[in-house]
Amino acid sequence: MISFESDYIAGAHPKVLQRLLETNMEPLSGYGNDIYCASAQKKIRAACACPTAEVYFLAGGTQTNAVVISSMLQSYEGAIAAKTGHVSTHEAGAIEHTGHKVLALAQKDGKIVPAVLRQYLKTFYADENRDHMVFPGMVYISHPTEYGTLYSKNELTEISQICAEYEIPLFLDGARLGYGLMSRQTDVTLADIAALCDVFYIGGTKVGALCGEAVVFTKNNTPKHFMTTIKQNGALLAKGRVLGIQFDALFTDNLYFKISQHAVEMAEKLKSIFKEKGYHFYLESPTNQQFIILENREMEYLKTQVAFSFWEKLDDMHTVVRFATSWSTTEEDLEHLKEILSLC
Amino acid sequence: MISFESDYIAGAHPKVLQRLLETNMEPLSGYGNDIYCASAQKKIRAACACPTAEVYFLAGGTQTNAVVISSMLQSYEGAIAAKTGHVSTHEAGAIEHTGHKVLALAQKDGKIVPAVLRQYLKTFYADENRDHMVFPGMVYISHPTEYGTLYSKNELTEISQICAEYEIPLFLDGARLGYGLMSRQTDVTLADIAALCDVFYIGGTKVGALCGEAVVFTKNNTPKHFMTTIKQNGALLAKGRVLGIQFDALFTDNLYFKISQHAVEMAEKLKSIFKEKGYHFYLESPTNQQFIILENREMEYLKTQVAFSFWEKLDDMHTVVRFATSWSTTEEDLEHLKEILSLC
Amino acid sequence: MISFESDYIAGAHPKVLQRLLETNMEPLSGYGNDIYCASAQKKIRAACACPTAEVYFLAGGTQTNAVVISSMLQSYEGAIAAKTGHVSTHEAGAIEHTGHKVLALAQKDGKIVPAVLRQYLKTFYADENRDHMVFPGMVYISHPTEYGTLYSKNELTEISQICAEYEIPLFLDGARLGYGLMSRQTDVTLADIAALCDVFYIGGTKVGALCGEAVVFTKNNTPKHFMTTIKQNGALLAKGRVLGIQFDALFTDNLYFKISQHAVEMAEKLKSIFKEKGYHFYLESPTNQQFIILENREMEYLKTQVAFSFWEKLDDMHTVVRFATSWSTTEEDLEHLKEILSLC
Amino acid sequence: MISFESDYIAGAHPKVLQRLLETNMEPLSGYGNDIYCASAQKKIRAACACPTAEVYFLAGGTQTNAVVISSMLQSYEGAIAAKTGHVSTHEAGAIEHTGHKVLALAQKDGKIVPAVLRQYLKTFYADENRDHMVFPGMVYISHPTEYGTLYSKNELTEISQICAEYEIPLFLDGARLGYGLMSRQTDVTLADIAALCDVFYIGGTKVGALCGEAVVFTKNNTPKHFMTTIKQNGALLAKGRVLGIQFDALFTDNLYFKISQHAVEMAEKLKSIFKEKGYHFYLESPTNQQFIILENREMEYLKTQVAFSFWEKLDDMHTVVRFATSWSTTEEDLEHLKEILSLC
Repeated sequence: MISFESDYIAGAHPKVLQRLLETNMEPLSGYGNDIYCASAQKKIRAACACPTAEVYFLAGGTQTNAVVISSMLQSYEGAIAAKTGHVSTHEAGAIEHTGHKVLALAQKDGKIVPAVLRQYLKTFYADENRDHMVFPGMVYISHPTEYGTLYSKNELTEISQICAEYEIPLFLDGARLGYGLMSRQTDVTLADIAALCDVFYIGGTKVGALCGEAVVFTKNNTPKHFMTTIKQNGALLAKGRVLGIQFDALFTDNLYFKISQHAVEMAEKLKSIFKEKGYHFYLESPTNQQFIILENREMEYLKTQVAFSFWEKLDDMHTVVRFATSWSTTEEDLEHLKEILSLC
Repeated sequence: MISFESDYIAGAHPKVLQRLLETNMEPLSGYGNDIYCASAQKKIRAACACPTAEVYFLAGGTQTNAVVISSMLQSYEGAIAAKTGHVSTHEAGAIEHTGHKVLALAQKDGKIVPAVLRQYLKTFYADENRDHMVFPGMVYISHPTEYGTLYSKNELTEISQICAEYEIPLFLDGARLGYGLMSRQTDVTLADIAALCDVFYIGGTKVGALCGEAVVFTKNNTPKHFMTTIKQNGALLAKGRVLGIQFDALFTDNLYFKISQHAVEMAEKLKSIFKEKGYHFYLESPTNQQFIILENREMEYLKTQVAFSFWEKLDDMHTVVRFATSWSTTEEDLEHLKEILSLC
Repeated sequence: MISFESDYIAGAHPKVLQRLLETNMEPLSGYGNDIYCASAQKKIRAACACPTAEVYFLAGGTQTNAVVISSMLQSYEGAIAAKTGHVSTHEAGAIEHTGHKVLALAQKDGKIVPAVLRQYLKTFYADENRDHMVFPGMVYISHPTEYGTLYSKNELTEISQICAEYEIPLFLDGARLGYGLMSRQTDVTLADIAALCDVFYIGGTKVGALCGEAVVFTKNNTPKHFMTTIKQNGALLAKGRVLGIQFDALFTDNLYFKISQHAVEMAEKLKSIFKEKGYHFYLESPTNQQFIILENREMEYLKTQVAFSFWEKLDDMHTVVRFATSWSTTEEDLEHLKEILSLC
Repeated sequence: MISFESDYIAGAHPKVLQRLLETNMEPLSGYGNDIYCASAQKKIRAACACPTAEVYFLAGGTQTNAVVISSMLQSYEGAIAAKTGHVSTHEAGAIEHTGHKVLALAQKDGKIVPAVLRQYLKTFYADENRDHMVFPGMVYISHPTEYGTLYSKNELTEISQICAEYEIPLFLDGARLGYGLMSRQTDVTLADIAALCDVFYIGGTKVGALCGEAVVFTKNNTPKHFMTTIKQNGALLAKGRVLGIQFDALFTDNLYFKISQHAVEMAEKLKSIFKEKGYHFYLESPTNQQFIILENREMEYLKTQVAFSFWEKLDDMHTVVRFATSWSTTEEDLEHLKEILSLC
């Protein structure tokens, strides 16, 4: 059965796997102290146009969010996030598990609205009882968001400025960053992100790697003894090479961007297929995740023909489902989908 | 330069990597809900002769220790471990980071002595102030230990009985389990471990996988909602297949045991090479890690010829170093080592 | 200056202090193992009409909330609370500090609406991704709420039934319980609370004690080794007598209820004074806390004449402030307030 | 029955209670923002000869240790303490509960030996694997120790210098500080402690207060937003006055020192009584706690005549027990004890 269930349904992009094969028998030191990690770090610094960036590799997204957030917050601080942010809802309380509250803001299309953020901070600092409250210690945004949407450069700049004003770091969760950067509708570059965020990560798991996320600290602001913190959180792979080699491959010959572009193109085609058939979208997503509203009976039938994922109930009759493309999506998959839909 | 630095200097065993390649393009559901995870679980249950065992895959050792220990302890409990146990010393306080004390016991050759354990528990329960102390909630042992040593079946049985008597689980850290099971000097089988322990893990990272540890609950005692706990700890890989496929390969045609046996044979040869040259060992290890005492100046020279790892200072003149073999160690490596030593 | 700043502006009710004096020189064992703690526990069991209730004394409200909630939740669970609940907003993230998310529900007049609670739980268990979310492990309500409002017996019964249905405990924060029980507008008794809640606490700090809250487990459901948990949380007073003696005094000759009634009567008079003067209330509170809307300039003037507390900004021109009465409020205080207002 | 069970068997010193009575009806703001807290802080600064000291009041010792230690450590750090230190053994794992390891050092008479401390730190920083270990982030000492012993000024100075050299704070747990300062055998003053420690606390609970410990930061080094941290740990009393008034009384007319001196004198007499009777002491304590070795049968008899506390088993025939004096111990108590012993 063809699958649009997620952007992690396949293994690694063949070129990534190929590099793992080629380097497999080389003896290397553990814990990220190897030439491939060093090479990948260098390439990422270049791609970010941030020569002083400090780059660390972790295995997965929730892990990265928890390690970065908890290591950058003081104990009395929490992380501001959109109510729909991954850290707010779908990480099983991983942030709270580290002792920090997620300060959930109202959102629009999955995004934090700069004016709402500013108001929140203003109200907090105007509250005479704020010593009895959780201090806002960071702003967390995801880009693309959990709904596939993107911040404009203006929005990102405004959020960055608010953070600077309140002296709190801006952290961008880029689990699907490639798909955002290669969207036809974005004006945000990787260099912009490096310039506007204090820390962000470049997602590998969902963009062609077996696993792995590259955390980038952009302002010489890596928390002290960060490697020990990674270890303490159970997030330090003995074979750090596994992550370094993969990111080295992803950042060779623009692979990361090429495969992201492919996924976005596939998503645009998928969008057209659904639109032509008269389907409605839950919102307009310019990236690889598309949220479609299905009548429940139709959804049940479609499930038997193609894999996709449940997102949320819209009403008693309708459900929002997600179709995701990735580097592994093919034209054949889309042809097949078209046929299936034509039989609905 | 040849390397005996650790048992994780190479990538994955070629057969493991081969399976990742073969299955790479298959679309699979995430988070471990795939046929390869299921197949690996089935094979592990069979290898353990424990048809009801519940098997989970995590990425690394420290992570596994932290997740298993914290999910099995009550908040007022700690884990008893040898003072030299990995959780006591070399995991950056990962257990305490979850809120639990490691109750460190005096050790012998890296092992908990059953009589010492019994005395500890007896003293604890005789103490009128025990309500003000950390309750012993679990016994943690590593097998092989951090010094490459092994528990005998008698020792393991006795520890298991003490645990049963005090109604606390026995958890065996098998980060290097294969090397223990295939030692010439062991009378302990995988089935014994499954029978005597409440939970243990079969190390993949150090025995042929890119990463991955297989946790085995043997008494229908998986903590409730364990998958959510794994997620909450940032330990749930989106591409769970990466772990499942590797373990499926390791438990096909006894690969896990064969490569462990190879490493042990290489270690025996390495041992002979050092012994013939008159070197002294810090202790007698029957597994793949060998601890050799070097005069400091000699160590400095050797470092330039072959990679090994610092273990601890013995005195002002001598240092204990570790030479580790693995599935990737070759006869040529040993020949080379022999030559190097003959020039010392 | 007269003060309606809070219900903890004075020391202890004179009869409570008197008992501390009378018993001061008696040598007693520490940590709550004394005759006064035992006597207070007995009296509280009787007052609750719950002969098997298990009663513990802690020093303060936030502490009690954190210890009770964290000891009753599994690590993968959070506590459902109204968005305005004390644990949600004004405890500096004490619950998250223990590793648990507060699952904030929309509220009405500071209360959880049974239908909203039911919907939340239904939606949670219908979500196919719930394994990636925080499990609802408890319902937390405050009674009176932070807005002085009260649950009716019907509401409390419905919430209790929903909890039973989902097999999660109902925890009632009774920091100001006395003022709720003695409200003219309540149909809820202490026995009702003991019958409908799994655990609750009877606030002392805000109802006549120097400090102290009495936690009551009503269903033989005290978490195992709870005393050790209290100690581990730094919440075990060496001189446990301090709490026991005070609660013994409060539950002698209905003192707790009498002083609560006095405070409620004072609040009713205070309400009349403001109403007569044409002030508007933020909401209708039947207990000792009254929330009044002041024009900002008027607020600034009033501040110079009488102590009260800032609650929240209503709009650019108006502020919500709180006037609280307690056992220590006198008729003279009210007369004085009336004069002040007549000069406004 | 007379009692030497602990130094917290009575309520508060009458002068302390008297002040609570006198101030009881004054309306004061909560959370420590009152004139009595301010006055006590001022007096403590003077007593410490440290005009810039920052003083905070908490309710109990374990709470104070947990709040101070966790707020001063980074997440990757632990606190060095003697193996017999209160935080190591008798606080139910309260420090680990905050996520930090207690790094237990071998001790002598309950004290950290400066040379052992220096060696520990030297070894740690020489270890090539230290990134995988818990960083020593603070030194915790108790004075008097859990065995009633005292550091000399030389020892304290040396430990302070080692801490300065390694740039980690020195924290002194003064739960029984008064008894140490008034010992006949000490050369350490309160001013010395303020000069040599980065933070310490002056115990109230065990030296005449109902409850309360005064934390003193001596180097303008109070952790940022410390009040919020106190709140977050459930350690902020609404009626902060309760602690402020008591410490204000204790530091008026040298009451704290006078009652400590009385207790020490009583302890010296108690010591003589036991010595005259030929009893052996477990060690020589110059403060209010005396550790006596009793033959088990004798202990059982004595228990029926006088209250004391079990300390630890010495061997199968003997037990170490503790007799403690305090401000409430009287000459009559000692006479009575003498009679009891004469009948043994």
